[in-house]
Amino acid sequence: MGMREEILSLKDQVLSRDSIDFDPKKFKSVIVAGMGGSGIAGQILSDIYDRVPVIPLSGYTLPAFADSSCLVIAISYSGNTEETISCFEQARERGCPTVAIASGGTISRSSGTVIKIPGGLQPRSAIGYMIMPLLRGFMNIGDQDAARIRSAIVSAFDREAEIKRLAEELASENRTPVIIGTPEFRGVALRWRTQFNENSKVVAYSTFLPEANHNDTAWMPSYDEERFKLIAFSSIDPRINLRIDLTQKITGRKFHVIGSDGTLIERIFFLIAYGDLLSYHLGVLRGIDPLDVSVLSRLKDGLAASKR
Amino acid sequence: MGMREEILSLKDQVLSRDSIDFDPKKFKSVIVAGMGGSGIAGQILSDIYDRVPVIPLSGYTLPAFADSSCLVIAISYSGNTEETISCFEQARERGCPTVAIASGGTISRSSGTVIKIPGGLQPRSAIGYMIMPLLRGFMNIGDQDAARIRSAIVSAFDREAEIKRLAEELASENRTPVIIGTPEFRGVALRWRTQFNENSKVVAYSTFLPEANHNDTAWMPSYDEERFKLIAFSSIDPRINLRIDLTQKITGRKFHVIGSDGTLIERIFFLIAYGDLLSYHLGVLRGIDPLDVSVLSRLKDGLAASKR
Repeated sequence: MGMREEILSLKDQVLSRDSIDFDPKKFKSVIVAGMGGSGIAGQILSDIYDRVPVIPLSGYTLPAFADSSCLVIAISYSGNTEETISCFEQARERGCPTVAIASGGTISRSSGTVIKIPGGLQPRSAIGYMIMPLLRGFMNIGDQDAARIRSAIVSAFDREAEIKRLAEELASENRTPVIIGTPEFRGVALRWRTQFNENSKVVAYSTFLPEANHNDTAWMPSYDEERFKLIAFSSIDPRINLRIDLTQKITGRKFHVIGSDGTLIERIFFLIAYGDLLSYHLGVLRGIDPLDVSVLSRLKDGLAASKR
Repeated sequence: MGMREEILSLKDQVLSRDSIDFDPKKFKSVIVAGMGGSGIAGQILSDIYDRVPVIPLSGYTLPAFADSSCLVIAISYSGNTEETISCFEQARERGCPTVAIASGGTISRSSGTVIKIPGGLQPRSAIGYMIMPLLRGFMNIGDQDAARIRSAIVSAFDREAEIKRLAEELASENRTPVIIGTPEFRGVALRWRTQFNENSKVVAYSTFLPEANHNDTAWMPSYDEERFKLIAFSSIDPRINLRIDLTQKITGRKFHVIGSDGTLIERIFFLIAYGDLLSYHLGVLRGIDPLDVSVLSRLKDGLAASKR
């Protein structure tokens, strides 16, 4: 499957019925351990669910507070991610209840709850499989909701012509994308950034309002419009949309604002689908194979070799 | 006081004896609300302290889990930050125990514990006053530790010639700094980024290892060395220093690696002092007044006017 087909498969991934069975309200905290494409799900869950602290973790080490009162969800598409395995093993040792989400590998053979998802994709393309069990378990997402999420994704893919035009703007001057998120779309902004990194092989910058009004706004009047392209997501909070307007007025800079509608979850998936396709087209326009992440694989091999 | 003097004052700020009196272990979670320069303290605390989840919050809204089992620390140097006041008021309504850290303004007149810190600085320059009460209260930092932190800061300022040379490298090609942090230096990387934003009026990009090996590493081989300068912090974790070496080898790109020594807290302050002075010199070389953040003030005025 090519990268475009992998990206388009998101719309069907969200119909998956896997679900986490634990009631998150029974825990003091929830840690979602995962790296890269497998880590985004935890960031998005923490943007949406707030009855219990949800801490996305990308690294080797569980915090000291992780004990039997902390649910640890380990997500690794391959099931063999070094950092995630390290966190998962610590969780088992400390008696944390655990859920593993993987398509195979070491983690899928562990004791504790395992949700085995379909393999054969790039990890970053399997985001629907990795996130839906969290949303079904934590947010009571049912089949009807999933069908509406699917529609939101399709409506983004239907805008492919518009998406291609934006990709051309980015490619024509080799501009660096600056993604201006909002508190509810921090995970989405991270997704856009990392998809630009991997699919388009470009640096991308992400920030979010209102925080950006306390630091990033300072450079905007003096930045180089040839080098950067400012892209903002409109918010569900009118106070933040007012800031999007005012920031443009006061800095004299124009943002490319991307709207969305529906529930927060529908908006999140709309924006993910939009950004995924954008990163694909930017990669193609740059003459790069969006599927190729051999530099990441060589790094993994180098790390493995250093341990022998 | 000019910006350089404000930055140099950090070494004496850390001798401040203010401390939070609450025992954090008595709470299920701790939220540190603050924006921009006042928000960094919460990010740094969450990098250092892990007996209880510490959630840095920059925005208007407390999460649903914030109740009487959650300690809310609101930091606003002016005491008048709209978002932080909003969080603080919600905390009082919900019966969360609160601590306010401010030099004056609305927040300093609130009920609950108030730590009043010296005024007259730019908020971002008062980081020592804002963070020390957290470190004294959570990490049992005493006067001897504070004296060692002061020495670490002085040893960074003693490197001003080296710092200036790095500023010249950044200025000469108008390069965008790319800051490669680590899990223990996420707050520091954010500090560098935002000090570049405000003092130097440049975009700066921050990421951290090992996470960056799952996304950012993909663009590194194809990036434009004239446009970007990659700066990494060496880690206290040898597994991450191995990644710094391997990433350079596999991408064929050279990082400017900044080392540090001593305890984690000493290293953090050393790196903050180093970056603060670097951002100052870059601003000066760019012909910009590092003190001037009038664009941020105009934004605040615009927001206030929109409410009338």
